[in-house]
Order: sequence, then C-alpha cells, then structure tokens
Amino acid sequence: MTEQTTPAADIAPHTPPAFGKPDSGLRRRVYTIIFEADTSAGRHFDVLLVAVILLSITVVILDSVPSVVGRLEKPLNVLEWTFTLLFTAEYIARLCCVRHPWRYASSFFGVIDLVSVLPTWFALLVPEASAFLDIRILRLLRIFRIFKLTLYIDEYLRLGRALRASGRKILIFLSVVMMAVLILGTVMYVVEGPKNGFTSIPMAMYWATVTMTTVGYGDLTPQTTLGRFIASFMMLLGWGVLAVPTGIVTAEMTSQRMNWKPTNRTCPSCLSEGHEPEAKYCKDCGEALSA
Amino acid sequence: MTEQTTPAADIAPHTPPAFGKPDSGLRRRVYTIIFEADTSAGRHFDVLLVAVILLSITVVILDSVPSVVGRLEKPLNVLEWTFTLLFTAEYIARLCCVRHPWRYASSFFGVIDLVSVLPTWFALLVPEASAFLDIRILRLLRIFRIFKLTLYIDEYLRLGRALRASGRKILIFLSVVMMAVLILGTVMYVVEGPKNGFTSIPMAMYWATVTMTTVGYGDLTPQTTLGRFIASFMMLLGWGVLAVPTGIVTAEMTSQRMNWKPTNRTCPSCLSEGHEPEAKYCKDCGEALSA
Amino acid sequence: MTEQTTPAADIAPHTPPAFGKPDSGLRRRVYTIIFEADTSAGRHFDVLLVAVILLSITVVILDSVPSVVGRLEKPLNVLEWTFTLLFTAEYIARLCCVRHPWRYASSFFGVIDLVSVLPTWFALLVPEASAFLDIRILRLLRIFRIFKLTLYIDEYLRLGRALRASGRKILIFLSVVMMAVLILGTVMYVVEGPKNGFTSIPMAMYWATVTMTTVGYGDLTPQTTLGRFIASFMMLLGWGVLAVPTGIVTAEMTSQRMNWKPTNRTCPSCLSEGHEPEAKYCKDCGEALSA
Amino acid sequence: MTEQTTPAADIAPHTPPAFGKPDSGLRRRVYTIIFEADTSAGRHFDVLLVAVILLSITVVILDSVPSVVGRLEKPLNVLEWTFTLLFTAEYIARLCCVRHPWRYASSFFGVIDLVSVLPTWFALLVPEASAFLDIRILRLLRIFRIFKLTLYIDEYLRLGRALRASGRKILIFLSVVMMAVLILGTVMYVVEGPKNGFTSIPMAMYWATVTMTTVGYGDLTPQTTLGRFIASFMMLLGWGVLAVPTGIVTAEMTSQRMNWKPTNRTCPSCLSEGHEPEAKYCKDCGEALSA
Repeated sequence: MTEQTTPAADIAPHTPPAFGKPDSGLRRRVYTIIFEADTSAGRHFDVLLVAVILLSITVVILDSVPSVVGRLEKPLNVLEWTFTLLFTAEYIARLCCVRHPWRYASSFFGVIDLVSVLPTWFALLVPEASAFLDIRILRLLRIFRIFKLTLYIDEYLRLGRALRASGRKILIFLSVVMMAVLILGTVMYVVEGPKNGFTSIPMAMYWATVTMTTVGYGDLTPQTTLGRFIASFMMLLGWGVLAVPTGIVTAEMTSQRMNWKPTNRTCPSCLSEGHEPEAKYCKDCGEALSA
Repeated sequence: MTEQTTPAADIAPHTPPAFGKPDSGLRRRVYTIIFEADTSAGRHFDVLLVAVILLSITVVILDSVPSVVGRLEKPLNVLEWTFTLLFTAEYIARLCCVRHPWRYASSFFGVIDLVSVLPTWFALLVPEASAFLDIRILRLLRIFRIFKLTLYIDEYLRLGRALRASGRKILIFLSVVMMAVLILGTVMYVVEGPKNGFTSIPMAMYWATVTMTTVGYGDLTPQTTLGRFIASFMMLLGWGVLAVPTGIVTAEMTSQRMNWKPTNRTCPSCLSEGHEPEAKYCKDCGEALSA
Repeated sequence: MTEQTTPAADIAPHTPPAFGKPDSGLRRRVYTIIFEADTSAGRHFDVLLVAVILLSITVVILDSVPSVVGRLEKPLNVLEWTFTLLFTAEYIARLCCVRHPWRYASSFFGVIDLVSVLPTWFALLVPEASAFLDIRILRLLRIFRIFKLTLYIDEYLRLGRALRASGRKILIFLSVVMMAVLILGTVMYVVEGPKNGFTSIPMAMYWATVTMTTVGYGDLTPQTTLGRFIASFMMLLGWGVLAVPTGIVTAEMTSQRMNWKPTNRTCPSCLSEGHEPEAKYCKDCGEALSA
Repeated sequence: MTEQTTPAADIAPHTPPAFGKPDSGLRRRVYTIIFEADTSAGRHFDVLLVAVILLSITVVILDSVPSVVGRLEKPLNVLEWTFTLLFTAEYIARLCCVRHPWRYASSFFGVIDLVSVLPTWFALLVPEASAFLDIRILRLLRIFRIFKLTLYIDEYLRLGRALRASGRKILIFLSVVMMAVLILGTVMYVVEGPKNGFTSIPMAMYWATVTMTTVGYGDLTPQTTLGRFIASFMMLLGWGVLAVPTGIVTAEMTSQRMNWKPTNRTCPSCLSEGHEPEAKYCKDCGEALSA
C-alpha cells in the first residue's frame, strides 16, 4: 500500500528539491531546460546529455588501452577536451541559473559535476612530467560521470527503494556471513598455515570470502586433507546460505506485487492495528473503521 | 489473468500467420504437411524434422573434433551432404507451397532455413584452398539449425513470454550491474595496475564481471592487500545482488500461478469481497455481480 | 489440495507394493522385520541397516586412499567381508521371505541389493592379478549401497515428488541453456580457435557450460579481447538466467504451502472449473456448488 | 501466526534465563549493568563491550600479519593485555554477581568468556620457546570473542529462528547433495583416475563439491572427454538444484510475511469468508465471529 500512496514528487527524478527556480527571464528559461523535463527542449537536453555522458565514458575507457592510445592519441585528446568544455559549460550554466548556487554546488550531483571536469583542467595546469602517476589516477575520476545517468533514469530510484526496504535484513545477513568468514578463515589459517599460502588471517579471510561466495579463483586452495574437508563444508554452507538474501528480497517483492500488507489503520475504539485495507469493521472489537 | 485470456493463436507455434495457405491441390496438401501439425502426416513430418535437425547438429559438432574427422571424414561428409540436400528440398518445398514465398523467405525462420544450407553449397563452389578459414567459419553457420527446433516445441514460447514480462526489470538490473562493473573495474585498475595484469580498464572490467558473477576463473587475481579487500567486497556485493533478478522472476511467477489480484468488487447482496476479476456471480451467496 | 488428499500409501516408504506378504509362520515373521517398520523389531532392523550401510560406504571410500590402504589393508578387508556377508544374508533372507522372489529380485532395490554384494564375491572367484583394473572398478559398484538409504528416509520421497512437479519446466529450461551453450560455444570456437585451447566445439561447449553455470575453473579462459567480451556477456546471461529455475521451484513451493490452488470442482450447471475451495456458488453462472 | 504469539521473553536477548539475580546491594547493581539492558548504565556497558570486542578481534587479526607484527609488536602486545585484563575483570564480575556462578560458567557464553581470555594467560605461564606452535594456535581461540556479539544484537536471534524453521528441509536437501557428491565423485575417480589428479575417492568428492557448488577452483579439472561430459552434467545439476533451498527459504519467508492462511470461518451475519484466524469480529459487517 505505502508504495502506491507515496507522493509523486518522491519518485520524480527531475525535481531537485531546493535549488530555487528563478522567477522569470533567461535564467528561468535555462533552468527549465537544464533542470526540468516537462518541456520538449528539456527532454531533448536530457537525451543529449545521456548520449554525451556515455560517449565521454567510452573515451575514458579507451584512454586506458595502450594499443588504442598509441594509434588514436590525438582524436581521443580532442574528444576529451570537447567533453570537458561541454560539461564545464553545463556546470557553469547550472550554477548561474539556480537561485542558491552554493546549495547546488554542495549537493551530490553538484560534486559529481565538478569532479568529472576538474581532472582534465588540472592536468593542463600541472606539468605532467613531474606527477605523471597521480594525474593519471586523478583523470580516472572522470569515470564518475556515469553517476550523472542515474538522475535521468527513474527506474534506478525505484530499484533503490525496493532494495532499501530489505536493506537492514541484508546487512544483518552480511554481518553473519562476515562472522563465518572470520571464524572459518582463522580455522583454515591454523589448519593450512603459511606454507600452503595462508600467510595471515586477512589472507585466509580473503580465501574464505572467495570460497563462500562460490567465486573460487583457485589462486589459493587447501592442500591438506583436513583443509579440503573444511573447505567442502564452507562451500555447501555458502551455497545453501545464498538462499537467505534471495528469500528476503523475493518475499519483499512478492508482497509488494500482491499488494497485501497490513495497513496503519487503527481502530478508534480498541487501538488495534494490522487491519486489511478493505476491512470495514475492526476485527478485534467490531467497531466501525473510518476509511 | 492475461495469461489465460490470450487468444489461442498466440501460443500455437504451428500457425505462421501470413504466408498464405493455398486453396486446393497438391500445394495445399504439402502446406498441410509442412506447416501444420493437425494431421497425422503433419505430426510425423515434425517429429522427423526434429530428429534430422538433432542428427545434423551432431555432425557439425563432430566435424570440429580433429580426432573424429581424421577417422570418419568420409561418412561425415556423406551425412552432411544428405542433410544439406534434405534441408534444401524442405526449403524449396516451403517456398513453393506458400502463396507469398517472399514473405516466408524474409521471415526469421526463412532466413534460418537458408543460412543453414548455404554454407555447404558455398563450399562446393569456392575452391577451399584459397579461403580455407573463412569457409570453415561459414560452415559453422549450420549450427543455427538448432533454432528450427524452437518452432516445434511450444514450451519455448511460453517460457519466452514469461521472461518478457520481467524483461524490462532485468534490463534495468543488468545496467546497474554494468555501472558497478565500470566503477569497481576502474578502481581496481588504479589499485592493482598493469604490473599485476590489470593492463587496461576493459581488462579490469572483464575481471570485475568474472568476480561479481561469481565465475572466478582465476586467470587474473588481485595481488595487493587493498585489491583483495575491494575484491572481497565485490564478491559479497555480487553474491547478495543475485537475489534481485531471482526476486523479480519469482514474484512474477508466483503471482501468475496464484492468479490472484484482489479486486475491490463487493457483492451487492452479502457484501463479501475478494471476488476474482472475471467472476460474474458472488461465490458466497450466488447473487449477480456488476462488472 | 491434491497434496493433502494423496492416499497415505503413496508416501509410506515401507510398503513395497507387490512382493507378497506370506500368510503365517517364520517367513511372515522375517518379512515383518525386514520389510516393515511397524513393529519394534522392524524399526531396530532398519536403524541397524542404515548404520551398516554408512559404515560399509566408509570402508569403500577408505579403500581408495593409498595411504590408508597401506596401513590398514587387513582390517579393511575383514570389515568388507563382514559387510558383504551381512548384505548377502539380508539379500537371501529377502528373497526367501517374499511370496514372489523374482518380482523382488527384478525391482530397483532388488538389483541394488545384488549389485552391492556381487563385486566382492566376484573378486574372490577371478584371480585379481589378471584383471586388476576392471575388478577395482567393479568393486566400486558397492558404493551404490547408498541408494538403500533412500528406502528408509521418507523425506527423500517427498522432496522427489516436489521436484517432479516442477520437473518438466526445469527440463525445458535446461534444454534452452543447452541451446545457449551450443550456440555460444560455437561462436567462441570461431573467435578463440584451437591456438587458445578451444580445440573443438565439444571443448568450447564444455567451457561454455563452465562459464554459464558460474563454476569458472579457469583451465580454459578467453585470450582475445572479443572473446573476453563474449565471455562477460555469457556470465551475466548465465547469472541472471539462474533466476528462472529458482522462480519455478519457489512458485511451486509457495503455492503448495499457501494451499491455494484452483480445485477440480465443476459447476453442475455451466461446467466451468477453477472454483476456490470455499466457494459456495459458481462464480460464472451463480448455481449452487456441491461441497 | 506462531511467530506473533511467541512470548516476548523468547526473543529478548538480555535475559539469561537462570543465573539468578541477587536480591539487593552492590551485586544486584552490577548484575543490572552487566546482564541487563534496561538501564542507561546497562546500555552504555553493552555498547562499550561491543566496541572492545571488535577492537580486540582486530588485534588478533593484525597479530597474524608478519609485516604488521614486525613493526608494531609492542603496541599490539600492550593492547592485547589490556583487552585480556578487561575481559578477565568482566568474567570475574559476572561470576561474582550471579547467584549460581557455576550455572553461568558452564553456559555457552560462560565458556566463550573463559576461552577468550585463557590463551593469553596461558602464554604467560608456559615458556613460549618450548611449545611455540601450540601456543600460537591456542591464542587464536581468542577469535571466538566474536560470538559474544551475538548476545547483544537480537536480529541474529530472529534470523536464527527463521532458519531453524526451514532447517530440517535444508538438512534433507544437503544429504541428497552429499549422496550426489559421493556417487558422482566415485564415477569421476573411475573415469579420470589417479593420473589426472583424482588420487582417491575423498579427493574426487572434494572435486565434486567444488564443482556442484559452482565454486570451481580449477586446482583439479577433468582431463578426459568423458570426464568433461560428466562434469558439465554435474555443473548443470548443481546449478539447477540450487533452486531448491532457495525455494524452501523463500516459501517460508513469504508465508511468514503474508501471515495468511485462509480459514474456513464464515460470518454468521453476512456470510463473508477469508477472516484472519484471530479475528474476533467480521471485518465486513462488524458482527461477532464465533471462535
């Protein structure tokens, strides 16, 4: 039920709540295009931005492949500067057209917008030769442009909300898994020991995680009979235990879908709760319930 | 509900909608056998075709095993030509007996039918010596004969429809996974670097996919302590997140199976609720329900 | 519903249907002990048999460990002969006390009973020196004694029935997976080729199975960029598709548990079906339904 | 239903049932702080204890990393002794303030409390040189301090109870998996043999577990064609069978969540059905329902 009655505003991704829409003039027109999606121009702007973000991410990825950089260093550089200029212009436009620029600049997407252009400008200012490695890493911050996508695709918000509903249970579950990883990792550290690659408890815990999540790289495997026996037990445990988060999420989704949840309706007479949405009389005292 | 009320035509796999059934004569008889499954001859033809397809696929597979080809090159060649002649005859028969041959030829199964015989004929025309590799690859197109099976086993259609219902949600989910793969792959590229095998961002993304899906080949593993820590986090993430698509599909299947979306319909006589959407009379007192 | 109304006989594991219980005398007493579990002696016999089976399986397993055989060859031999004599005695007793020995001997458990003692006797008759390897393999048939356990633990029967209910759907699902393995395996055979270990289509299909089921041994991994891209796609596919059988089984179990299934009740007037268990009037024509 | 009606005491983690609360005086005050969480002091004590446990576990883990021990041996030693003194003081305080010290000392958490301090004291008494290895292992017993956490986080109790509800079914399931591992491991031992690494049945069973749980280390892989075929079959089996425990847990959780077992109760006045088991008045007309 709750799901259906949340105000639309909650899921509308194009309503940054409190940056302030100017009252009139050019700034209001730009605001409408950049921040809203109700007009045709606003929708076109959004689609264009998603395309530019995806292209820019592709350039960042290609930038890391030695063989591509060898052949296409020039065009990649040109593209990167084009994107940086575009995103910088967008950032400045956003800053200019809102009534509370600082509020925008310190919001999550304001920071992302800044972080995704800064590295390129920074690389221009600082001589690369002296700090090559750090710059290279800094430039990879541009990858965070991908987060700008989430603002334009509201299914992400829905999925996020669905997960948050089961979030606490999943956290509890993960902490139980962590305890199993700690205990069983320590046991394996004792059983196998440094000579078989289990050089420390953190290393053994890494192995236990690799095993219990059924990833199984094989870079570290038990070599003793007892170790193999414990490992087999852990695999079965991890494999079976995977059922738990699945059960949690599925139960959540099934009940949302079937739309069957005790409501918050309270009987005015006996104060009992948990009445069905369509109940007309209190099931506990027979008093009429208000709609 | 929708499930039950879809017109039968929708799930009848033997009704290629618009190729045109001839009015009478031999063509009509052949059409009945090849395209329909209502007659005994039509059913026998279908069973025979499934058997020939499976045998022909087996020959294509064996054709790729060096030790088998060494011993059985002759019989495999004979079998392949037999199958090619059979499928060619079937293709020509299909083309001849429909009223709109072009419409059939350009349909999905028309293209598959052509593609599965062409390579063998092509290999006859072009001297193999000059283009050995390309021919070998082309011949493997024959493997697509397997798709012809889907036409004869209508459970595939049902399963496909069930998946399509959850398809959009699964796509959204996969795009979120892709974002996680991109971000975490980039982070690992920075942390581990080319000296530990993470030679580029695409490579690191390949590793992130291998890890998050719990495949874990082990051809690329984190070597630094920080890298191992991030990898452990990713494994737990990917393992727990697997619950999401399972939840989506299960919720879909459960609600289809239980066929139960509570309605607000109330019986005008006994005021009972919980009637099925298509019920015409109250299940409790037999009074007519209004639509 | 169906679940609840199945006659008890169907799930009673101790009722081998048609071997024939003798009318009186010693044979009847032995039959009661060996085949039934209603008496105290019968229950003790069952518990003893389970223990002997588990011990005997342990001996077979230890028999394969070189280091154990080196030290304990004598005691293992003695134990094995003890178990063989016990099982032989049991087999003969079963044969003697039923009215239709042949019917028992040719039943599933009759064959298992024979197969689990024969190898040891056979090893006595044939000089081991001449056929060492075959005998060793034959002796491992004794491992099938484990199947005798299933007769005594009726939860196995229940689980089996639950799986059978979803069996057809799972089979269809597996055949779709096989098709994906075939197509994608062939594609990888073309892309990677024998020089990267994909020596034949069966080998590539083995790799595709290892990848799609998220096992990921790592004995065969893609080496080309395109191959890695296709492999990543397959991992995500296999990982997401795992949701399907889970959805099938869960939907089955949830609906069994919630006991909510359209019944076979038919309206005497309009012959419609699918009425709820507690409906009193036909939802389609309003006619009273008989209980 | 049962879930809701369990007495609160059952889930209250701070009520060690029968150690005996002193009647008055200092002992009663200490008891209130250490064993209960109703007072502000008691809650502060609990939070502090959780923090100390987590820190102490971190020290144990760091103690196993050679590079860390090399640099920080002194501070780690000091911290470890601080924690040991704190936990010893806590243990003695617990012993002193309960009315039945022995009952506490022999309870699960009493043993854990003792085991987590003993090793450090023991290391002081015994000269390390003579029994280095054993001491090192003994000291790792301190890791069990993590179990003390479970007493303070009652979600663990809830999760545990939810799992226990499906526990028997999961056990049955695991025993079926073990049977498959035994049979298929033995088959692979025969097919691959010692020359391909399957040196004994236990080794082959270890491999079968690694494969069926989709861990797939790759330290042991099938080398023969037949072996690869059987392995592929096992992977698909294990992958599909994973659906079973998920189905069990999910069905359990869904039904708990929906809390809905349709009853046959009918309202004597309006004849409506579908009332919850504990409803006392008809939700549709407010008439009293008979039990």
